[in-house]
Amino acid sequence: MSKYLHMQMYDVVKQAGIAESTWQGAVENHDAVSEEFDGVRFFRITKKIGTLGKGTVITEEGIIFGFPSIARILHLENGVRNAYTHPFYVEEKVDGYNVRIVRIQGRILVFSRGAYVCPFSTDRIADFLEIEKIFDDIPGLIVCGEFAGPDNPYNIEHPPYVKEDVGFFAFDLMMINQSHNIPVDERYKIFDHYRIPTAKRFGQFSVSDVSGLKKIVKELDESGCEGIVMKPTYPAEKTLKYVTLGSCLRDINVTAPLMTEMASEFFTHRIIRAAMFIHEQMQELQPEVFSQLGKVLLRPIYENIAKAVRNEVIDEKFLLRFREERNIQRMIEHLRKCKVKFEVISKNKRGNYWHVMFARKCYATYEILQKHLQGATHVD
Amino acid sequence: MSKYLHMQMYDVVKQAGIAESTWQGAVENHDAVSEEFDGVRFFRITKKIGTLGKGTVITEEGIIFGFPSIARILHLENGVRNAYTHPFYVEEKVDGYNVRIVRIQGRILVFSRGAYVCPFSTDRIADFLEIEKIFDDIPGLIVCGEFAGPDNPYNIEHPPYVKEDVGFFAFDLMMINQSHNIPVDERYKIFDHYRIPTAKRFGQFSVSDVSGLKKIVKELDESGCEGIVMKPTYPAEKTLKYVTLGSCLRDINVTAPLMTEMASEFFTHRIIRAAMFIHEQMQELQPEVFSQLGKVLLRPIYENIAKAVRNEVIDEKFLLRFREERNIQRMIEHLRKCKVKFEVISKNKRGNYWHVMFARKCYATYEILQKHLQGATHVD
Repeated sequence: MSKYLHMQMYDVVKQAGIAESTWQGAVENHDAVSEEFDGVRFFRITKKIGTLGKGTVITEEGIIFGFPSIARILHLENGVRNAYTHPFYVEEKVDGYNVRIVRIQGRILVFSRGAYVCPFSTDRIADFLEIEKIFDDIPGLIVCGEFAGPDNPYNIEHPPYVKEDVGFFAFDLMMINQSHNIPVDERYKIFDHYRIPTAKRFGQFSVSDVSGLKKIVKELDESGCEGIVMKPTYPAEKTLKYVTLGSCLRDINVTAPLMTEMASEFFTHRIIRAAMFIHEQMQELQPEVFSQLGKVLLRPIYENIAKAVRNEVIDEKFLLRFREERNIQRMIEHLRKCKVKFEVISKNKRGNYWHVMFARKCYATYEILQKHLQGATHVD
Repeated sequence: MSKYLHMQMYDVVKQAGIAESTWQGAVENHDAVSEEFDGVRFFRITKKIGTLGKGTVITEEGIIFGFPSIARILHLENGVRNAYTHPFYVEEKVDGYNVRIVRIQGRILVFSRGAYVCPFSTDRIADFLEIEKIFDDIPGLIVCGEFAGPDNPYNIEHPPYVKEDVGFFAFDLMMINQSHNIPVDERYKIFDHYRIPTAKRFGQFSVSDVSGLKKIVKELDESGCEGIVMKPTYPAEKTLKYVTLGSCLRDINVTAPLMTEMASEFFTHRIIRAAMFIHEQMQELQPEVFSQLGKVLLRPIYENIAKAVRNEVIDEKFLLRFREERNIQRMIEHLRKCKVKFEVISKNKRGNYWHVMFARKCYATYEILQKHLQGATHVD
């Protein structure tokens, strides 16, 4: 990046109260990483710098603040009672990957939570939003939401109602240079006015409606959905998330194939969440759930052992549909930059879309299981 | 410890090739901790110092080397093929706690793996061995074995054939000042001559006897035993351990009550071992095992949630039988020193033994579950 551009970026960062020496230090330490997509230059914040959290994007047109982490509760009733004295909105928690959509220098860009431009999501966003009109009317808007569906690059799970490809589900709006989001009722008006598809909205609740909330959670669990997000009407109160038993089991099922290389907490945290959910929402521990839990933990790793015996490298296939062919190469470069090991299996034009099949190669799991199978010894 | 004693101890350590400055540094860093039991002074090695591994004990009469870690295999057939070109002995792996028994300054002491004197084991060892006679005949002998049974201070699991109290099962012999053990056939002669109770011995095997080994493992699994240890006849070859599916499931069952405070790897490692065992020993993944695995993971933590709801602090009770009353107080002090939180529930003389009931108090688990139940939020 030229000296001139570098200074221009600092002019943006300065507004967040960051000293020039702090910014220079951050760039040198790679806490702020220079990136470029389709001619748009930006910095990706990889580690908190003053008020700029991880995941923040610095562009010439302003700061796109990181999407905030949402606090989790494991007991719905008491969590809600602790958190809210005012009414709160309830929405479905959609199981996909989180994005922020912006228009910078005339280009629509879809940023991942890690502040990368996702070429796949950027390619596809026009399928879901009247995107230029929204940004013409509200310059500086940031549309936050979830890409979700069986055919996506990042998330194996998906909501039951997206049967193929991906969908987009907005759930938040921010403005450039502002770290807070737009209040829920105003947000909903914009969603409705522009017919922006959103996560399912269950409306306003108060602490006295816990039984209504529990009913929603039960229905979401039965239909295979992830859970709920609760959003305050009173700005000082917290946003909270709460997930279903089924979501815990599905998380385990899709992650257990890589149990040897994953952080083990992934599994125990979900078992504890499951136990808390059953205790509060079901009162009784049914034997079926033992069988379900054992199956999602054991079968995937057992099947990968069987694959390793046959010398089949373990992989996870995913299909992506692109509107523009050039975005395929951009996606390949993006995955490489993110250190994903993968192969492109096939690429075909079908109707208006390029269908590209990828296979993520899970070499680490394969190699660990091979060692075990070959009779390697270890001291634990 | 007096300067004189300190120097006397260094004279012992010196024989292991440790420089005086290294020893002094280790003492200052608490890598060698000064201890005393029943008038016998010793150092407990808490961190490797040159050739002195963790768990080594330095006494005025010499060095009791740490009991070596045994390498684990997850595939029996290939593990054995890799490790052995010569015959090897097979013994039952007894699920208890590892001890080294010595006579120092005329006193019989039973050391734990962590190089503490265990007052309970020291109190009880005379029930199992003609201890004075053995040490009269073979001065400097170290008898290594397992205390195992339902009523012990450290290990919740126990072999199925010890129905109450504890038993002692020798499996190794070492000599003071020597880091290696006595060859297996010589060891067995001493065990037999002194009628020392031992872990079950299955005799000599060779790599061509894998089917015989598998049969033993199957029988041990069916009878609720932990597994096998394989010991080389050729000194350069390794000692190996291999555990049963049932042992993995029981390990999980007794540890899952404390899932919130345990290292999560405890659980995933055993799930992977279970999958490897099933793949090699059973060929087929039966649905019963899903239900068994789910139950041992979920039920204990669910039950502790229910206890926390009733404000019952979670505890683990254990009964210890002592021959001498003064060893009860010593055991209490030992547990305190090891930072175990516990209460003494009852103390009664029954026949020749003092029966003392302890309760280990699991405050950490209780407090974490209480927080979850109270609706605490966390960001993960």
